[in-house]
Amino acid sequence: MSDTVSLPENVTHNNMANAIRALSMDAIQKANSGHPGMPMGMADVATVLFRDFMRFDPKNPTWANRDRFVLSAGHGSMLIYSLLHLTGYDRPTMDDIKNFRQLHSPTAGHPEFGECPGVETTTGPLGQGLATSVGMALGERLANAEFGGDIIDHYTYVIAGDGCLMEGVSQEAISLAGHLKLSKLIVLWDDNSISIDGGIDLSSSEDMVGRFEAAGWHVQRVDGHDEEAIESAIRLAQESDQPSMIACKTTIGYGAPNKQGTSATHGAPLGDDEIKAAREFLGWDAEPFVIPDDVLNDWRAVGAKGADTFAAWSAKFAQLDSAVQADFLRRQAGDLPEGFEAAINDYKAKLVAEPVKVATRKASQMALEVINPIVKETIGGSADLTGSNLTKTAGLEPVTADDFSGRYMYYGIREFEMAAAMNGLALYGSHIPYGGTFMVFTDYCRPAIRLSALMKQRVVYVMTHDSIGLGEDGPTHQPVEHLASLRAMPNLNVFRPCDAVETAECWALSLQAKDTPSILSLSRQGVAQLRTEHTEENLCAKGGYILKEATGGAPKAIILSSGTEVEIAVAAAKELEAAGTPVRVVSMPSTDLFDQQDSAYKASVLPADVLKVSIEAGSTYGWERYTGLDGVTIGMTTFGASAPAEDLYEHFGITANAVVAAVNEKL
Amino acid sequence: MSDTVSLPENVTHNNMANAIRALSMDAIQKANSGHPGMPMGMADVATVLFRDFMRFDPKNPTWANRDRFVLSAGHGSMLIYSLLHLTGYDRPTMDDIKNFRQLHSPTAGHPEFGECPGVETTTGPLGQGLATSVGMALGERLANAEFGGDIIDHYTYVIAGDGCLMEGVSQEAISLAGHLKLSKLIVLWDDNSISIDGGIDLSSSEDMVGRFEAAGWHVQRVDGHDEEAIESAIRLAQESDQPSMIACKTTIGYGAPNKQGTSATHGAPLGDDEIKAAREFLGWDAEPFVIPDDVLNDWRAVGAKGADTFAAWSAKFAQLDSAVQADFLRRQAGDLPEGFEAAINDYKAKLVAEPVKVATRKASQMALEVINPIVKETIGGSADLTGSNLTKTAGLEPVTADDFSGRYMYYGIREFEMAAAMNGLALYGSHIPYGGTFMVFTDYCRPAIRLSALMKQRVVYVMTHDSIGLGEDGPTHQPVEHLASLRAMPNLNVFRPCDAVETAECWALSLQAKDTPSILSLSRQGVAQLRTEHTEENLCAKGGYILKEATGGAPKAIILSSGTEVEIAVAAAKELEAAGTPVRVVSMPSTDLFDQQDSAYKASVLPADVLKVSIEAGSTYGWERYTGLDGVTIGMTTFGASAPAEDLYEHFGITANAVVAAVNEKL
Repeated sequence: MSDTVSLPENVTHNNMANAIRALSMDAIQKANSGHPGMPMGMADVATVLFRDFMRFDPKNPTWANRDRFVLSAGHGSMLIYSLLHLTGYDRPTMDDIKNFRQLHSPTAGHPEFGECPGVETTTGPLGQGLATSVGMALGERLANAEFGGDIIDHYTYVIAGDGCLMEGVSQEAISLAGHLKLSKLIVLWDDNSISIDGGIDLSSSEDMVGRFEAAGWHVQRVDGHDEEAIESAIRLAQESDQPSMIACKTTIGYGAPNKQGTSATHGAPLGDDEIKAAREFLGWDAEPFVIPDDVLNDWRAVGAKGADTFAAWSAKFAQLDSAVQADFLRRQAGDLPEGFEAAINDYKAKLVAEPVKVATRKASQMALEVINPIVKETIGGSADLTGSNLTKTAGLEPVTADDFSGRYMYYGIREFEMAAAMNGLALYGSHIPYGGTFMVFTDYCRPAIRLSALMKQRVVYVMTHDSIGLGEDGPTHQPVEHLASLRAMPNLNVFRPCDAVETAECWALSLQAKDTPSILSLSRQGVAQLRTEHTEENLCAKGGYILKEATGGAPKAIILSSGTEVEIAVAAAKELEAAGTPVRVVSMPSTDLFDQQDSAYKASVLPADVLKVSIEAGSTYGWERYTGLDGVTIGMTTFGASAPAEDLYEHFGITANAVVAAVNEKL
Repeated sequence: MSDTVSLPENVTHNNMANAIRALSMDAIQKANSGHPGMPMGMADVATVLFRDFMRFDPKNPTWANRDRFVLSAGHGSMLIYSLLHLTGYDRPTMDDIKNFRQLHSPTAGHPEFGECPGVETTTGPLGQGLATSVGMALGERLANAEFGGDIIDHYTYVIAGDGCLMEGVSQEAISLAGHLKLSKLIVLWDDNSISIDGGIDLSSSEDMVGRFEAAGWHVQRVDGHDEEAIESAIRLAQESDQPSMIACKTTIGYGAPNKQGTSATHGAPLGDDEIKAAREFLGWDAEPFVIPDDVLNDWRAVGAKGADTFAAWSAKFAQLDSAVQADFLRRQAGDLPEGFEAAINDYKAKLVAEPVKVATRKASQMALEVINPIVKETIGGSADLTGSNLTKTAGLEPVTADDFSGRYMYYGIREFEMAAAMNGLALYGSHIPYGGTFMVFTDYCRPAIRLSALMKQRVVYVMTHDSIGLGEDGPTHQPVEHLASLRAMPNLNVFRPCDAVETAECWALSLQAKDTPSILSLSRQGVAQLRTEHTEENLCAKGGYILKEATGGAPKAIILSSGTEVEIAVAAAKELEAAGTPVRVVSMPSTDLFDQQDSAYKASVLPADVLKVSIEAGSTYGWERYTGLDGVTIGMTTFGASAPAEDLYEHFGITANAVVAAVNEKL
């Protein structure tokens, strides 16, 4: 599908590009907020790309084989809104464009996935559009290998700015893309030599072309206002067997005669006078928010071509084996295969029959050994900690540049790109990505975790070595504040299972949460299996539950805990009960899910008038939500230290003795 | 000082390098934990570097003009511990080395600044050693420009591994270093072709030499086991007017005959059998933890040379003007200049006399206009948001490759490198760095913020646009969970001042905290000045205080708030008091500092039996620590949205009405 769509005869390129410029400057002026420089500078490139190359059908914006377009320089959002409106998507309407950056409008300040059809990923946090696009281009290759070139074979186009390429994650992205030879990924760099603080030479003097070449990319330079040069470059890029970068030399804010080429056009409305001058300069007579019929017709003709393309694809899809069709559609819908829940339940029953004492990272691998053969759309991986994260299961072959039929990604020491690529894979829609690193390195990929949450993507983060229990590697590698900092993030399920059964349940919940990413916080060190009775019900689904009810009377104290410390909580409870104090133990694998329960359930687990003591080998921050101010929170208030794990638990007082003492002191 | 120290005649290179190898494999074996591959592979390079080039005095480890050595591949910590012990630092002793990775030993699993003299920065989180070293090399140039080449003129050497160079921050680092032509920065890349998961070709195929060249570096390739080639390459690197990278081709785990060259040597003890075989292979007969006298003498002679070098420098230093000497020493000690507190107090008094209604980011700039002329060691900067962060003050000239006499850094769109460079500047010791970006992008530099906190470095993060008050840029740019996630981090002071007076106080506290980094969380939008009576006392020092006492009786409710929402709290209190309910308003610019107060003070501000309502335009997570479970927390529980700020406050219910309703419902 690398042939070029023929150019409509009656199009004048300038008018089409100027339509983007006019909509951009007018919408930003009306909102009194926004970034006109990029859409005006890149209007020519975008016009050629959409008119001559992009395969899409505005009436079927989620068509699986569409070309993907990512505006990595997301502040230039009026570029994509203009393109989507002009080519005939249902939204944004012209009213939406008039409501640019207003509450409830799909035309958010930065493009937001899920708010506006045709927006493939949320961009704005710089570098991440590019980083995410690598995951999309990878998704395309994986789906191509699995379903064949008749069904999946398309390009992923990215517009990136200097900001994107100065961010470190861009290096992780281009390095990985070059390594995998993602030849259908084409990046158009808006090489305008301007950043917010002024000329790019204030802060950068690198040879961008040389940098991409060193990463194994095909690179070209063009005048970003020369229609034919752009067209020719994109065509060559399509033919390359490497990922391609086209350096498009542009004038930022092109068309604004007094401000173009300066940072003044970057992030503020041009002002009425300059907009008037721009209209004259561009020869654009139409009133604000009016597109002349001939120009609109040209643009709509571009969008209308997609109907035939989509129909031709649909015909091919209809020829597939019906089971393959069903599987393809199930996966696009994000549903899990039949038999998933039964398999998890069988596995839980087996664990109860033959309890194991293993680290929860090992329990995670055991759960994956059950999951991966059934949920064939998982793509596992690790940021170079495969043997530590235990993310690889039997039969998972690596994905390589030569063979995309594998299901395991060696992401390299690139945590941020791994997370962003997983976002791209999840958005792409054919696969469910999971990937591992150490829990402490959630910090390295936190900006992408946030986008998983904001975009409501099912990405599973397998974060092992989740406390001081990591031991000798020391405080640089021991998470302390990470659980709290992740629990504070909206729409992110943090799971910290206490044993193999809870780990299986948390894996199930992670895969069942179609609109929420998950963090699996897993231990380095072994833990006893505390769940010894089989339940069909997924007890972790409520976030917190009574693991051990008080014996010898109504509970006088409740010990709350998560993960590896639940074992300590149970030991403390036993000691207290032996001394005559009935104690309930509540396992809290997910405070996020517990917070979502109704108040009756919460009160049944944590009644108001009973002493509550929490113990967790992480920051105590946030536990007061459950213990109240009369309770006790046992945990970390400093960074950890380098020593064997057992020494550290003792040193930091995260022990059964500490719990017993706290309860006895308070009662 | 680019001449080479002459090579002692009676040294055998192999024995010196093998001493490192033996100590490394033996200490790791005894600890049953650690990473022998790197120290053994890079022993030859390290031997040449320390023996022939490094200027240091083990008896004066904080000598200002020492060469800096950064082990960016921090997992190879036994390399630096070996070098420090062998060259005669007081610590680590041989007992310390025997206690590698044990509690209270200075020989932590990864090198930790402050735990062991000679460790210049904490490393282990990959890429950050290199990123921090750029700040050190920058500090050297700044101090050189200020104090002259007789006082400051030295190299910064870095050993980096593949992991460091795969991390995105490495690109930000090398791009910035190349731009600034930090020619005294010399990076030795341990090019061993191995990562944890296996061969580096599993995940990477970039041309590292080409990449550094594109970033403006001088690059060489050498055999990392060829003493003469290494020596010659470092000499050439010293002479270059660009930063230098030397690709040292090594065999990981060199000397372990059956495991060398494989990932098996990377992160686990070699085992007794392999260690025995290595002793034979290397011809190293000595028992574990024994260094033969002749070898130890050779190494100690290397360290002993530093005494003369230090003495010569001291003589030059003594010739400086006594005021310059005093200033230099004051800054090295981290003390603020005389007059600082008085200037802040004068400024506060002026604000009270002429109240201002400004955004706290503007108030920050106003405070800096007072601070920067007095505290001449500040180095300001921004990650390409100077006009938004308002971090530049009158007369601050940019730092450029041609002129290091400036005090303002255009860090570019490199938040992570900015933070890491600030760590390097703070560690370097001559300057106090502050730098800005949007608060939401604390995520992008969080790994370096964590190292600021762990290393107890005075770095001031100027984080503006700190809530949904940012408005139209939308949820990608609106922090929600960030305050909570940063408050959860140990040894980090998060400040969120409510007006210009509090902003001045928080700036003072940030600069006075010699061992703690600070986050200044500042608003985009304007706020009224609420502090209208002058106090000599810095009221923010206690973290939270009574801003407005209840009138008309003892308080029936307490409203707690921070930053821009304090104004809302005051409005709500007025409305409630007008209706007959006495209400206290507590301003909480820093929950971190409030948590450090004694319980009597805390109870005086927040008595147990009074209803407490918190309001903050961020996640409610964590506020229960102050409101208890009977109180109310008003804030964000979802991501924000793109709209004008006032619409968002209304939409998300962060209003005086919401506070009034909550109080009335509870009372």
